[in-house]
Amino acid sequence: MNKYFPSVSRVEYRPDAAADETLVFRHYNPGEVVHGRPMEEHLRFSVCFFNAFRYLGGEDHYGDRTHVRTYDDGTRSLDNYKRRLMAAFEFFTKLGVKFYSVSDRDLAPEGESLDETNRVLDEMVTLAADLQKQTGMRPLYFACDLFSNPRYMNGAGANPDAHVFAYACAQVKQGLEMAKKLNAENFLLFSPRDGYQSLIQRQVFRDLSHMAQLYKMAAQHREKIGFKGQLLLQPKPADPRRHQYESDAMTTMGTLRHFGLEKHFKLDIKPGFSRLQGRTYEHDVIMASAFNMLGSVDASDSYPEVNGTSDVHAHDTRVATLVMKCILEQGGLQTGGLTLGGRLRRESVETKDLFHAHILAMDTYARALRNAAKIMADGSFARTLQQRYGSYKSGIGERIEKGAATFEECEEFVRKYGEPQPQSAHLEHYDNVLNYYVYPPRQ
Amino acid sequence: MNKYFPSVSRVEYRPDAAADETLVFRHYNPGEVVHGRPMEEHLRFSVCFFNAFRYLGGEDHYGDRTHVRTYDDGTRSLDNYKRRLMAAFEFFTKLGVKFYSVSDRDLAPEGESLDETNRVLDEMVTLAADLQKQTGMRPLYFACDLFSNPRYMNGAGANPDAHVFAYACAQVKQGLEMAKKLNAENFLLFSPRDGYQSLIQRQVFRDLSHMAQLYKMAAQHREKIGFKGQLLLQPKPADPRRHQYESDAMTTMGTLRHFGLEKHFKLDIKPGFSRLQGRTYEHDVIMASAFNMLGSVDASDSYPEVNGTSDVHAHDTRVATLVMKCILEQGGLQTGGLTLGGRLRRESVETKDLFHAHILAMDTYARALRNAAKIMADGSFARTLQQRYGSYKSGIGERIEKGAATFEECEEFVRKYGEPQPQSAHLEHYDNVLNYYVYPPRQ
Amino acid sequence: MNKYFPSVSRVEYRPDAAADETLVFRHYNPGEVVHGRPMEEHLRFSVCFFNAFRYLGGEDHYGDRTHVRTYDDGTRSLDNYKRRLMAAFEFFTKLGVKFYSVSDRDLAPEGESLDETNRVLDEMVTLAADLQKQTGMRPLYFACDLFSNPRYMNGAGANPDAHVFAYACAQVKQGLEMAKKLNAENFLLFSPRDGYQSLIQRQVFRDLSHMAQLYKMAAQHREKIGFKGQLLLQPKPADPRRHQYESDAMTTMGTLRHFGLEKHFKLDIKPGFSRLQGRTYEHDVIMASAFNMLGSVDASDSYPEVNGTSDVHAHDTRVATLVMKCILEQGGLQTGGLTLGGRLRRESVETKDLFHAHILAMDTYARALRNAAKIMADGSFARTLQQRYGSYKSGIGERIEKGAATFEECEEFVRKYGEPQPQSAHLEHYDNVLNYYVYPPRQ
Amino acid sequence: MNKYFPSVSRVEYRPDAAADETLVFRHYNPGEVVHGRPMEEHLRFSVCFFNAFRYLGGEDHYGDRTHVRTYDDGTRSLDNYKRRLMAAFEFFTKLGVKFYSVSDRDLAPEGESLDETNRVLDEMVTLAADLQKQTGMRPLYFACDLFSNPRYMNGAGANPDAHVFAYACAQVKQGLEMAKKLNAENFLLFSPRDGYQSLIQRQVFRDLSHMAQLYKMAAQHREKIGFKGQLLLQPKPADPRRHQYESDAMTTMGTLRHFGLEKHFKLDIKPGFSRLQGRTYEHDVIMASAFNMLGSVDASDSYPEVNGTSDVHAHDTRVATLVMKCILEQGGLQTGGLTLGGRLRRESVETKDLFHAHILAMDTYARALRNAAKIMADGSFARTLQQRYGSYKSGIGERIEKGAATFEECEEFVRKYGEPQPQSAHLEHYDNVLNYYVYPPRQ
Repeated sequence: MNKYFPSVSRVEYRPDAAADETLVFRHYNPGEVVHGRPMEEHLRFSVCFFNAFRYLGGEDHYGDRTHVRTYDDGTRSLDNYKRRLMAAFEFFTKLGVKFYSVSDRDLAPEGESLDETNRVLDEMVTLAADLQKQTGMRPLYFACDLFSNPRYMNGAGANPDAHVFAYACAQVKQGLEMAKKLNAENFLLFSPRDGYQSLIQRQVFRDLSHMAQLYKMAAQHREKIGFKGQLLLQPKPADPRRHQYESDAMTTMGTLRHFGLEKHFKLDIKPGFSRLQGRTYEHDVIMASAFNMLGSVDASDSYPEVNGTSDVHAHDTRVATLVMKCILEQGGLQTGGLTLGGRLRRESVETKDLFHAHILAMDTYARALRNAAKIMADGSFARTLQQRYGSYKSGIGERIEKGAATFEECEEFVRKYGEPQPQSAHLEHYDNVLNYYVYPPRQ
Repeated sequence: MNKYFPSVSRVEYRPDAAADETLVFRHYNPGEVVHGRPMEEHLRFSVCFFNAFRYLGGEDHYGDRTHVRTYDDGTRSLDNYKRRLMAAFEFFTKLGVKFYSVSDRDLAPEGESLDETNRVLDEMVTLAADLQKQTGMRPLYFACDLFSNPRYMNGAGANPDAHVFAYACAQVKQGLEMAKKLNAENFLLFSPRDGYQSLIQRQVFRDLSHMAQLYKMAAQHREKIGFKGQLLLQPKPADPRRHQYESDAMTTMGTLRHFGLEKHFKLDIKPGFSRLQGRTYEHDVIMASAFNMLGSVDASDSYPEVNGTSDVHAHDTRVATLVMKCILEQGGLQTGGLTLGGRLRRESVETKDLFHAHILAMDTYARALRNAAKIMADGSFARTLQQRYGSYKSGIGERIEKGAATFEECEEFVRKYGEPQPQSAHLEHYDNVLNYYVYPPRQ
Repeated sequence: MNKYFPSVSRVEYRPDAAADETLVFRHYNPGEVVHGRPMEEHLRFSVCFFNAFRYLGGEDHYGDRTHVRTYDDGTRSLDNYKRRLMAAFEFFTKLGVKFYSVSDRDLAPEGESLDETNRVLDEMVTLAADLQKQTGMRPLYFACDLFSNPRYMNGAGANPDAHVFAYACAQVKQGLEMAKKLNAENFLLFSPRDGYQSLIQRQVFRDLSHMAQLYKMAAQHREKIGFKGQLLLQPKPADPRRHQYESDAMTTMGTLRHFGLEKHFKLDIKPGFSRLQGRTYEHDVIMASAFNMLGSVDASDSYPEVNGTSDVHAHDTRVATLVMKCILEQGGLQTGGLTLGGRLRRESVETKDLFHAHILAMDTYARALRNAAKIMADGSFARTLQQRYGSYKSGIGERIEKGAATFEECEEFVRKYGEPQPQSAHLEHYDNVLNYYVYPPRQ
Repeated sequence: MNKYFPSVSRVEYRPDAAADETLVFRHYNPGEVVHGRPMEEHLRFSVCFFNAFRYLGGEDHYGDRTHVRTYDDGTRSLDNYKRRLMAAFEFFTKLGVKFYSVSDRDLAPEGESLDETNRVLDEMVTLAADLQKQTGMRPLYFACDLFSNPRYMNGAGANPDAHVFAYACAQVKQGLEMAKKLNAENFLLFSPRDGYQSLIQRQVFRDLSHMAQLYKMAAQHREKIGFKGQLLLQPKPADPRRHQYESDAMTTMGTLRHFGLEKHFKLDIKPGFSRLQGRTYEHDVIMASAFNMLGSVDASDSYPEVNGTSDVHAHDTRVATLVMKCILEQGGLQTGGLTLGGRLRRESVETKDLFHAHILAMDTYARALRNAAKIMADGSFARTLQQRYGSYKSGIGERIEKGAATFEECEEFVRKYGEPQPQSAHLEHYDNVLNYYVYPPRQ
């Protein structure tokens, strides 16, 4: 495979490469054992087909496509889709990843009818399966694109028109079957059109209960066809809609629980989206993990100063370290992994830039893994955390945790022991400790 | 009662007053029947003691108190608290409201010990009960201030120190008893310190389960003492903490459900806080209402361009109309009401400004009520909404809502009926219709 | 002209129309005299060709075009451009505006060479001139689109490549000549690509001095060809670039002054963009006006909770009233006007929605004009403003304004007169007064 | 000096200290020569008296002071001010800085009259001068606090009341004299109240011209008394006012230029404030430097997801590296330096936390200096930058820069050379290169 990116060889680990040497990994060393396992098993990097191969630099209503790709003429011909898919596998291979994240519409255009659409998709899936065989790749997740086609402009599962809802169901049915055929690790539902521009013509609870119906049917169909992959939902607060119902981890988990669906799904968290709600990068990762619902992570980032979708490739090792720390603490992502879900900037027009961008994200998370592993090994955060919550291990604290304490008992306790001692949170100290791992001193 | 605001008489409804006539209502006419009930029964306005009487213009670390108040010398003497409380009741009366929203620390300072604190509070509650009797006021809600005292700097229910947790329990115990004594319509728990500055030294799930314990005990104690008021939680996304666990309606409802507490609580929504997460003013009101969890509303606003707490008095009738429409649609707020939770700007230093500010909010919501009532009476939004969701009334749509449809059936439906017709959302048209009610044409 | 919008007649002023009657003006009555002139002379509404006719609902990388237009097949054929232009003039006429705002690339696609591009543009301009003659329209402004073509991805005037800079010059040259041919009131330079994604590979001052060169040449060429229209710049803080050099009014005016260009340009302010920097809607309008640099206004709005480009049609009369008040206070916009620069939402797919959207904005600003005129007539804001600054009319204040006072003199003054009296800003009172005009009481 | 922080010794450079060893520098080594000079000469760290010694953890209207300080009883007694000042000098010494940044109100409270205020200030300045002598410290800047006292609630230089304006002048007069007495490197004017909450009762241009008058008088008085320090302005976009006139670097420089004051002032940039306007951390530093107006920098940071003042201590080496790179490129800060302008979090209550916080910021910037120095030494950014702008070195580019080119000439050039070659911005590649310096690979 050396047709579409002839000037690039397989990217190697070269920690000693000079600053302006490009197309090398400085931190990512797939086989190196860190925290008890090879780096590639911890990180399970996956290229995002949508952002890497469907987005071509026409980012906004201000301008036309800029990216130059020999393998993509911008048409929706099947030939173009095939060529693009083959280029993608060459890219995956040269980058040295084992996974890709892909949707039905990434692989194949729609036809004149549902049957025709399904047939074309099946043909492309067969090609993908063949390429998987040649390369050892597999999908980290297979997804249904329920947002690009104008039919979904008012939503898919939450569309006020039952006809569109039915269409989405038919599409997800085929999607699950294709996921099985490709042996995907997960199946992702991402619903960026299921929300509102205005609440005036919306029945919110009805919309949510419709979405829940779709999810229930998906879980049933998964069971029925014997697909083993994990079902995932990916929250996003807004953009393209003014508000999306599955805006964040807590909201999405709450809705799943309300409709009795929490055991069928896990979450795929894109930390860059947490910032769209004024939260820290690691927030939704940690909330999902706290409820044992973190299934996968999208290792992209956002411009911190913007509250829109910027989808830049991860480049900030400090915040990535907090994400990797959470992943190690929960014992890894199981069937999940790290989707490299950034997009090239519109001004980065060459295929070489596609490599640079993925290397940037991979090195960022590889370095973050090293940092997190050292944090775990040293155990200093864990120790001080145990001290901080120490009062819940015995006495009144233990009774509170057990649910045995009453207000009277608490009142009595305060009468006896009086005012608690102020406990400094030492926030700046912990920032120093974190920085010790992120920007180690020269020794 | 004409001691502390001698230059202001009772504020009257004077729709014909000139632009610069101040201290009149132009829209709020308490006894006028709108949508089947007197305006005052719909709106149940309540003065927020905290923002109206505890805040004195020292808004930030940039400056000292500016507000000039004959009744408040800025000290924590009991005399000062008493004088301030009497002034407040004179203010309530002149403004013509029936409710006030108050916390334990609004009424009384803390003493040297819990017992002393409780004794002083009891003394002040007795005074308040007496003033209630004279004036016919009652608390819309009674609350516990679990945030001002330095002991709560790391949280109350979610404090890592069980000693502080126990202290909060003892305080809430007394608070519930005082709420009963004052015959409060509701009891509010607002937990702005229960969140994090940094996730490094936090165990999120443990924190949430501790909060749930406190809530469970509160529900039990309410039962035990026979307090009839509704328990309320008030979400807020951030400020003073970098993130607060009860950040918004969906998150708070999800947590309640996770811990099996949803039947004991309703939400008090401050729409100005929705904007702190990049959402529209009406968002959390409508989400809470959709799940039958909207208990009360804080009729304040925020600077739309800022994502910090601005707590300005409501002044935008357009967005207030959307809130009142939701309240009418759910059949009113029952035991809840509209707390006037804005703060005077630091530069508005006179007591007269305190009246202007409350008149601003009350007129804004009174006009919003009139608009919403007319929207309901005309029924045009309701009609088009019914049409929009019409496809769920029969056929495949009906089967979907019943939970009877399967993916196969949906696929069959699409095979048979093909592509759905595009349905324009007509968003701009509905904005025109809304504006018809908000800014009526001259006729 | 009744070919492309056969189901819509000319939109009439019908203040008595019912709530759900569409395609009528409720506030805009072109010939009615308000504040001494017909409404249409104050408002000089102009349809934005770019947003109304080039944007077709493919708003983001999440989806395909949704808007259904018989006159636009989505191609770049000259036929399509001609049909679209004729449809546009029918739209202008039926809407009852006198102006349109248009760029070279709105009118004509680029050809294989600059000469070919110029030739095609000239052909289309001839057609536009002919349509202008038939309808009495003229361009409020003619602009050069220096952002859509991939060549401008790194900027036009601030492009690090002199070749691209030269291209932009050639394009502006032709643009000015076409503006003259169409008798445009203004010529607009909008530079949304002239900024940065990253400062690492930028020389900021050099970039700005290059932009200044382009402006200088534009001013010279305007003079040379005898074009009488006013030159305008339109600031925007970000999007599509991470930062744009002409981010706001103060920045743009400062740069013009630094390079000695301030007498050749005025600003076209889009208030919706002010919010992208966390400022109020009216902010940049008022700052530009304060320096006598406000040339024109774009009467669109933004979602207040979002800091991205939302470009919704103006619908908030309260903030629009503040803009119109500023315009009346500076004696009108002279050659400028109000461009209706919102975009239809992607879900509003019908041509009827295009009318609804423009009616929304026009009625919003028409009502705002009525409000502002009444504010001016009553004079209450002006009177209190004069009082507020009254201390600068004599004594030490007068000497300060004259530049005659010294520190010693000020110190002496304070020694003599001591502490100033606190002056309440009465902010909430003024909000009440403003609301008196925006939401008048029923009388 | 070992009275107020008895448990802390002088902080030493200990690059080999373990993760949880506190109160050591891991990167800051004052005497080590980097980029041709000792680190301490590059960095010129200065403790911010206001944030380190006047702020005591009462961050908001939600709560009381939390910080425990033996040397500060919270009163405004002169004894308390003296004790605090002596503690501060002990802190400076143990931290190993040479500068502090201080205002008149940091040093002394106001008296009953201006004369009394001046007298008390003079007394405290004498004490400070004595402590300076003992320790070798000096003020990086001396400032006037024109915002804390309620008299300035509506502004100082831009106050609508000339009496307040005169008061500000009297205060600045004394401030300049005290700055001279303390041999301050700079004199800072920070005007966070000079802006608006609402534009309705403001005359913007008049406000700005009043501010300019104050600046003119300050420049004259500086000359008159022979004070050699540089005059600085510190921009801030908002908070405490809804908008502040000196919102950012470009705005402030533009205003200075408009009133002919640019040669008398430089800017003190707090990068954390750039984010309040949706800009990157380094933005205003670079804009000020581009116009030769960068005088000093405040090395604090902000929570990136919040658009309010968070004033955290700098901790992000990646963005700090971009600031230090700019400083090295302009040849250093001359009389300026790096003020450590973060505030402790309210939950960090111990004096030890005050050390942790300053160490955090100092190590962050020390490491950033090392990174920037290596970037400069390697020269790879500089080389590629030169290439990027290479087309301006000759031919048409050179003529453009000289101001010699015309539109005709540019048109001719395009006719001859046709379409420019697309130039990839390689943004992700440059992020990789930057990360090479920020997170160096293990070798």
